[in-house]
Amino acid sequence: MDKIKIAVDCMGGDNAPGEIVKGCVEALKTHEDILILVGRSEIISKELSAYSYDKNRIEIVDAREVIATDEVPTVAIRKKKNSSMVVGLNLVKEGKASAFISAGNTGALLTGATVIIGRIKGVERPCLATLIPTEKGPSLLMDVGANADCKPSYLVQFAHMGAVYYENIMGKENPRVGIVNIGLEEEKGNQLTKEAHQLLKETDLNFIGNAEARDIMSNVADVLVCDGFVGNILLKFGEGFVSSLFRLIKGAIMTSIVSKIGALLCVKSLKGLVKSLDYSNVNGAPFLGLNSLVVKAHGSSDSRAVVGAISQCRSFIEKDIVNKIKEKM
Amino acid sequence: MDKIKIAVDCMGGDNAPGEIVKGCVEALKTHEDILILVGRSEIISKELSAYSYDKNRIEIVDAREVIATDEVPTVAIRKKKNSSMVVGLNLVKEGKASAFISAGNTGALLTGATVIIGRIKGVERPCLATLIPTEKGPSLLMDVGANADCKPSYLVQFAHMGAVYYENIMGKENPRVGIVNIGLEEEKGNQLTKEAHQLLKETDLNFIGNAEARDIMSNVADVLVCDGFVGNILLKFGEGFVSSLFRLIKGAIMTSIVSKIGALLCVKSLKGLVKSLDYSNVNGAPFLGLNSLVVKAHGSSDSRAVVGAISQCRSFIEKDIVNKIKEKM
Repeated sequence: MDKIKIAVDCMGGDNAPGEIVKGCVEALKTHEDILILVGRSEIISKELSAYSYDKNRIEIVDAREVIATDEVPTVAIRKKKNSSMVVGLNLVKEGKASAFISAGNTGALLTGATVIIGRIKGVERPCLATLIPTEKGPSLLMDVGANADCKPSYLVQFAHMGAVYYENIMGKENPRVGIVNIGLEEEKGNQLTKEAHQLLKETDLNFIGNAEARDIMSNVADVLVCDGFVGNILLKFGEGFVSSLFRLIKGAIMTSIVSKIGALLCVKSLKGLVKSLDYSNVNGAPFLGLNSLVVKAHGSSDSRAVVGAISQCRSFIEKDIVNKIKEKM
Repeated sequence: MDKIKIAVDCMGGDNAPGEIVKGCVEALKTHEDILILVGRSEIISKELSAYSYDKNRIEIVDAREVIATDEVPTVAIRKKKNSSMVVGLNLVKEGKASAFISAGNTGALLTGATVIIGRIKGVERPCLATLIPTEKGPSLLMDVGANADCKPSYLVQFAHMGAVYYENIMGKENPRVGIVNIGLEEEKGNQLTKEAHQLLKETDLNFIGNAEARDIMSNVADVLVCDGFVGNILLKFGEGFVSSLFRLIKGAIMTSIVSKIGALLCVKSLKGLVKSLDYSNVNGAPFLGLNSLVVKAHGSSDSRAVVGAISQCRSFIEKDIVNKIKEKM
């Protein structure tokens, strides 16, 4: 495969530009691709000057404006034509980059991507999909925040797109698709899930029915569909849960010298587990349903998350997910 | 305070009648009240025969039918007039009991309670409220499953009722009320939370605004309102999370003899923590907004959960929560 070009928004997210630029430089070590860093060029250059790296593999594209997290998405995208986000999305539209990654304002990224890059035919709303850890490997949860209010048909489209993604990225044929719900029986749930259940029954997907929230961590399904409100709540609750739990465990252990020693003896065995439970979405969440790849990196992304998001772009492009979704829809 | 009478559905829940009857007998040790055991009298008598207890404090009321978990609530309540649930609710309506506890079909219990006992004036929909563990003591989450689809006005009513409950049961004046949401800014969320936010701003409650799911475990608010779908998802996800995590930790520790020893040294310090994280809702969830007290015990309630639910009834009645909610609404 030819070298691909990935554009990265260096101005979006809590740790921009420092951690974003750092992550880009680190990512150069693990792949062959070319990165286009988008944002205020003098700031990016200054950050880059701290590192030694292959100058042929990093390009800078200047963009003077920045879209803040609290800006109204539609207004921001319309008014800030020279923002790092709009400039980055245009690079993809014009074929100068194969993908765009941003840790900035999610709503603005969705609006911008939909307007500039456009939706795949048959997709009413693009959604954000993310792999979450479970006891037996990752499940794909979607939508995790692009569409707070959904129609039943959206959930069916999410399911089709999620199955394509899971099958290709995780290498599992005919993945199990479930609706996140509050009961197993098909008459359980809210209006949305009840109607979506009936529609999903009619598809050729490996639809396992309702997936109770209690069973998500037991890997009850490979692809879990829900509206973006519920998905985001699940994702963020899980994230907060893990952090709180580790704080609580640490606090409890520090109360006695015996347990402090005990904890030291456990560290090695638990290390892998702690890593596998990382809910902070280190690989970013791709928007599924767009004509090209756009990845939302976590707002609090550090350099490690940027490396993860870049690596996710590679697999996504290699596996030709966009075209496979187009065929499916 | 006079002895109160609490009616208990002995036929509802995964572990009925064994664990329910056992819990009733155990509960006699911790309080002075009288329990009315509702269900097939011969089955209840047989279960009771295994224990020695004060026969003056347990009454049996016969009810021949049982409402199953998968029955359609409205149909079940209308047709099964002689079910343990309908008979138990009628005991409360007729003043023969002050409260009714059931681990059976949630929807049927809500429907039955609304029809037989009735709503408090000003309450459009009763809701289920439950205390969930956080890093700094419990938060009250509501609705956790009575109303999968809600209007903004319901959430405002939940907030008022929850504040009364929290203030009286937890003894904290002017509790902090938040909406479970996917962003802090008031324009974030779905249609429901955005509208509810505007309505809650106008109340005299100590409204702190949106509570992000990520911060729930950090005790961001005392009372957390949401629709019954989201609340149930949170509750069940938290419950499943804790179970999965303990399984994973156990599995990781068992991989080496060193960590096994380490874990033994930690056990004592972690014991309290494990207990405090019990998401299985041991005290049951009261319906708030009804003219009398009805408590939904967890479907998988064991005897300990029954004891918890009975003890919750006592505090609820002692603090006169129903009348305090009536005054407030």
